[in-house]
Amino acid sequence: MEFGRKLLKEGHMRVLLAIFVLFLLVSSGASGQSIPEVRLMPLPSSVRVETGGGLSITPTFSVGLEGYQDPRMERAVERFLRNVTRRTGLFVSADAVAAEKATLVIHTEHASKPVQELGEDESYVLEVSAAGAKLSAPNPLGILHGLQTFLQLIEVKPAGFAAPAVRIEDSPRFPSRGLMIDVSRHFIYMDTLKRNVDAMEAVKLNVLHLHLSDDQGFRLQSKEFPKLTEMGSDGQFYTEVEMRELIEYASEREIRVVPEFDMPGHSTAWFAGYPALSSGSGPYTIERRWGIFDPAMDPTRDDTYKFLDKFIGEMAAFFPDHYFHIGGDEVNGKQWDANPKIQEFKREHKLKDNQALQEYFTQRVEKIVSKHHKTMVGWDEILSPAMPEDIVIQSWRGQDSLAKAAQQGYRGLLSSGYYLDAMASAAKYYSVDPMSNADAALTPEQQKRILGGEAAAWAEFISDENNESRIWPRAAAVAERLWSPQQTQDVDSMYVRLAAVNQELEQLGLRQRSNLGVMLARMAGTEDIAALRVLAETVEPVSITIREKEAENAGGIQTSDIALDRMVDAVAPESEAARRFSVAVDRWVASNFQDAQAEAEIRGDLVAWRDNDAALQLLLQNSFLLKEISPVSQNLSSLAAAGLQALDYIEKKERGPEAWHTQQIALVQAAAKPTADLNLAIVPAVQKLIDASAK
Amino acid sequence: MEFGRKLLKEGHMRVLLAIFVLFLLVSSGASGQSIPEVRLMPLPSSVRVETGGGLSITPTFSVGLEGYQDPRMERAVERFLRNVTRRTGLFVSADAVAAEKATLVIHTEHASKPVQELGEDESYVLEVSAAGAKLSAPNPLGILHGLQTFLQLIEVKPAGFAAPAVRIEDSPRFPSRGLMIDVSRHFIYMDTLKRNVDAMEAVKLNVLHLHLSDDQGFRLQSKEFPKLTEMGSDGQFYTEVEMRELIEYASEREIRVVPEFDMPGHSTAWFAGYPALSSGSGPYTIERRWGIFDPAMDPTRDDTYKFLDKFIGEMAAFFPDHYFHIGGDEVNGKQWDANPKIQEFKREHKLKDNQALQEYFTQRVEKIVSKHHKTMVGWDEILSPAMPEDIVIQSWRGQDSLAKAAQQGYRGLLSSGYYLDAMASAAKYYSVDPMSNADAALTPEQQKRILGGEAAAWAEFISDENNESRIWPRAAAVAERLWSPQQTQDVDSMYVRLAAVNQELEQLGLRQRSNLGVMLARMAGTEDIAALRVLAETVEPVSITIREKEAENAGGIQTSDIALDRMVDAVAPESEAARRFSVAVDRWVASNFQDAQAEAEIRGDLVAWRDNDAALQLLLQNSFLLKEISPVSQNLSSLAAAGLQALDYIEKKERGPEAWHTQQIALVQAAAKPTADLNLAIVPAVQKLIDASAK
Repeated sequence: MEFGRKLLKEGHMRVLLAIFVLFLLVSSGASGQSIPEVRLMPLPSSVRVETGGGLSITPTFSVGLEGYQDPRMERAVERFLRNVTRRTGLFVSADAVAAEKATLVIHTEHASKPVQELGEDESYVLEVSAAGAKLSAPNPLGILHGLQTFLQLIEVKPAGFAAPAVRIEDSPRFPSRGLMIDVSRHFIYMDTLKRNVDAMEAVKLNVLHLHLSDDQGFRLQSKEFPKLTEMGSDGQFYTEVEMRELIEYASEREIRVVPEFDMPGHSTAWFAGYPALSSGSGPYTIERRWGIFDPAMDPTRDDTYKFLDKFIGEMAAFFPDHYFHIGGDEVNGKQWDANPKIQEFKREHKLKDNQALQEYFTQRVEKIVSKHHKTMVGWDEILSPAMPEDIVIQSWRGQDSLAKAAQQGYRGLLSSGYYLDAMASAAKYYSVDPMSNADAALTPEQQKRILGGEAAAWAEFISDENNESRIWPRAAAVAERLWSPQQTQDVDSMYVRLAAVNQELEQLGLRQRSNLGVMLARMAGTEDIAALRVLAETVEPVSITIREKEAENAGGIQTSDIALDRMVDAVAPESEAARRFSVAVDRWVASNFQDAQAEAEIRGDLVAWRDNDAALQLLLQNSFLLKEISPVSQNLSSLAAAGLQALDYIEKKERGPEAWHTQQIALVQAAAKPTADLNLAIVPAVQKLIDASAK
Repeated sequence: MEFGRKLLKEGHMRVLLAIFVLFLLVSSGASGQSIPEVRLMPLPSSVRVETGGGLSITPTFSVGLEGYQDPRMERAVERFLRNVTRRTGLFVSADAVAAEKATLVIHTEHASKPVQELGEDESYVLEVSAAGAKLSAPNPLGILHGLQTFLQLIEVKPAGFAAPAVRIEDSPRFPSRGLMIDVSRHFIYMDTLKRNVDAMEAVKLNVLHLHLSDDQGFRLQSKEFPKLTEMGSDGQFYTEVEMRELIEYASEREIRVVPEFDMPGHSTAWFAGYPALSSGSGPYTIERRWGIFDPAMDPTRDDTYKFLDKFIGEMAAFFPDHYFHIGGDEVNGKQWDANPKIQEFKREHKLKDNQALQEYFTQRVEKIVSKHHKTMVGWDEILSPAMPEDIVIQSWRGQDSLAKAAQQGYRGLLSSGYYLDAMASAAKYYSVDPMSNADAALTPEQQKRILGGEAAAWAEFISDENNESRIWPRAAAVAERLWSPQQTQDVDSMYVRLAAVNQELEQLGLRQRSNLGVMLARMAGTEDIAALRVLAETVEPVSITIREKEAENAGGIQTSDIALDRMVDAVAPESEAARRFSVAVDRWVASNFQDAQAEAEIRGDLVAWRDNDAALQLLLQNSFLLKEISPVSQNLSSLAAAGLQALDYIEKKERGPEAWHTQQIALVQAAAKPTADLNLAIVPAVQKLIDASAK
């Protein structure tokens, strides 16, 4: 009976402890890279916590504009005021007031560019004191960022809502901070894209890169070539009206929208409507499988370029951004090899291999893109010495590839290491730096060519309904890596601030958490899913590679038709419960088993996990979707029981018998194997306990 | 330690038990008003469960149209298919197929009216078997309803998603089934209104009545009179473009939008911009308090009617619906009494009192409304023998008032008893019938004049963020009362189906549950709110009357400026946990304390509640918003402890000592007093336990 009590208490103790640890971190350093006691993400380049009280946020809170003003800023202030209401519940007036009367005064020097440009000044200065706040920036871009910072500063306190007294000087480390959303492999609805834009604004990402076409779907209506969507989208595409609305929505939040139309490979969906574009003979239908496929555009026919000129012309006029992404990745060359005319063309033009042929294609496409006043962006493969220096390379190959491109004079973006669909931890993404060690190898000028990076959400295993949970909050860790000074590296602090962002995003209307609950309830056929949640919170999805391998082993393959409504699709990519448990175990071990607080936490968790299976099994049998997790639930229970035994041995200062230890290790190894495409995330920490008990 | 286990297990047992009880109910009756084993809400007028298996819902699920077709139906099918995906996760194709190949064949006889009319045929027949499904209806209205029924039929089963084999013949009991949302007292954003429309469609409500103006705000832009919103809305209003979009959105879902502009009272916000309309001397500002206020339009000046003619003309042209609501309620007459010219006018026109004066006003306004080709609707006060018989009375006074109107030849709608902001239970609303005993007193023709009813969400204590939770799922109980046969009265069955609707609505994108979690986390400043949720789930908001009285007692008054971000604003209007607890207690008492299952449930809940306060107090002190619930948390704990003692006495077959009993009753009485505007909903059931232990 006492444990129920302890369990809940520990939960809160843990949060308070985490906050306390954060304070310790603060006081341990004096300035520079110590982590200030503000829950901001990304962390500003400079935060000085001022003495004197913070600013109380009350219903009379108001905003006034000084200096340069324009309608977009006015609308931004309106949205900001609505967000203050969302963050506090206070009914602050939606109208701006005269600057001299305002709680928050905004001073802007001049306009930003009519169409947002790469490398524009995004800096701002924010000063908050008990008397009021002042936000100043050279142009509206900095103001919009500063408003997001202010919003994050507002916290609930024992005396009311307040923002701490601070002076923040802030500007981004990299000018290009993006999120790529693959809307081709699974269609993502406009409302979901807009919620992503809201989240991007909150963490100061400034480029939404839409992967609009691939083998599995062509998602944007073209007036010139209507069959692209009529035959290549299963009826799931954006009209131009919808896309224009999204571009506007993003632009209001100072987010550039960069379209990608992948070519010459990854293009089966184009050929469903326009088979003559391809290097093989049709007919084609939309590809349902995942992988790299043979169909590729025919780079030898003038008609191909006529088509692309018309198409790119239409899209270049439609998308205001100065950059245009042509993909260019993963052409396997099989259709080219199989086509005698293409072989002959290669010989005629002395193109020694398919890489040379693709270079030829890319050069011609680049001329088309330039002609339509855009700068070309593409994946690593588009790089060749013949390309003009203004193109931008997006690297899925890694920092070395990027550094090499920079040495050759090309600008680049890092995406390798930022694939969110790989289901890695926030800490893992956080550790990836676009510079890596490149800063040592590159001259300052070459370093400037590294423009930033992009988190990427490839959609083999992402649907509209779990899209937000696969992107957020982990993308915020990438956002901080791209915005904050390179030395910002404290992972514990990052996780505390990530939790704050996670909460903020749901305030702003995102569904990265709540949608998972809806999916769990759907699987269970009831809303009474407490025990199911306990299990869900201890597991993580396996990597895509393992998921595909498992499907193969089971004699099937994954296709775009197969529903993403299993447990693996409805759990968060990273288990916060397991992370906290692991931190507690490390703390306990490091204290030489003296830290009673850590031990109580560990025991509380283990008891709950051990007992969960009994509560869950009945439910699992009622749903075909839940049956497969029955062994996972049993494993959780057995593991937790083993952990408790280990705890008891350690507490009694007994050494666990050899046979017991061997048996437990076998159990751990069995539980460590992915089941139902899920990893039990508590395995390593339980293993540590068992190992410790055998010493 | 054992209790943690038991607790979770009981949770699931309870759900399974509830479902089991439902099945018992089914098998207890043979036909007619027995409750069929389908979780539909509103319950159709006739459901026959067929033998033979149900229809498996797989990714190849498809819809084909036969007979009459139009673009709205095609879009409805598209939305339906997206909703099938939301309900199952299956990627069903968004395209309709040929009828002969479809899983669900839709047969429509003819078009519905271009602008939806009161009393159009809404019937449909839905047949589902293992081989497929057929939905037929005279017109698209029935088809749209039938699609919602089909969606609710889909459930997760041990073998997959399936719809049971049924034959449903369905049509509504009343032609007018509405939801009134007050957007004046607190502004409700368009996206929230659209989510309400989604929910209305799901439960077959067909009228969205918008209370667009009141003393506290004028919410729709007028081209003729721009100062109505410029000076009467605090910048919070709908543009015509936005409102047109909502009307279209609702019309797509066969929901009529009826606008209400309240006059001659409840009109301070009009006068902020147009003081000359009033009976007093201005200037006026938006009213911030709640209540009935003096300002009223001047019924004696021709300019008033010129203004209204222009205004009503503009709005009548703008809103396509045939009905136009002029409010007409609660004129206190003080401004009329104080104005000598108005007094003189009364004498001249032999208007014996203010009621006669309002009648004069209403008659003139009715002529204006008619002139603009609309039928006037208003609250009880507009009824007078001089009014033409085609007006519609919306009754806040009750069934008798409504029956009397029907006897006089007037049509009417019931809203009395359906005020959702009164925070009553779903069972309470469910028990209110528009006919009451009127069917006995009225002739069949008079009965037909009772058109239905409207759930109403007055917004003194409803903000945009808790709007959905104050309306849903309880409005679904009203929807069933207005749609299903009068004999549909089983409250237990209603609650089981209400839970299913609650789950469905979040699948459809509503936030009636998830937003409460966001609000709790905001109050706590952390997402780790397990213990806070436990408390939140045992309390209910007090009624508005008590809330206002308490504010007065505390020396203040409630105004529209005061934030709705307290615990009372963030808990569900009805405690499901308390309801289930109370059912278990009744079951246990009825079993003469033999039902071990019931006892285990009761004990599990009481232990969790008793221990919760210890886990919670730390958190409560960190937030100014949570401090006030500290005594509520303590009361929950003490009450639960008392309940456990009672349980022990009963179990041991001992009689609780007199002194103990007296002490516990004092405790219960103290806990029964509202604190922080919250009622501890478990009080009556705990009192039953204590009383039982003293016997």
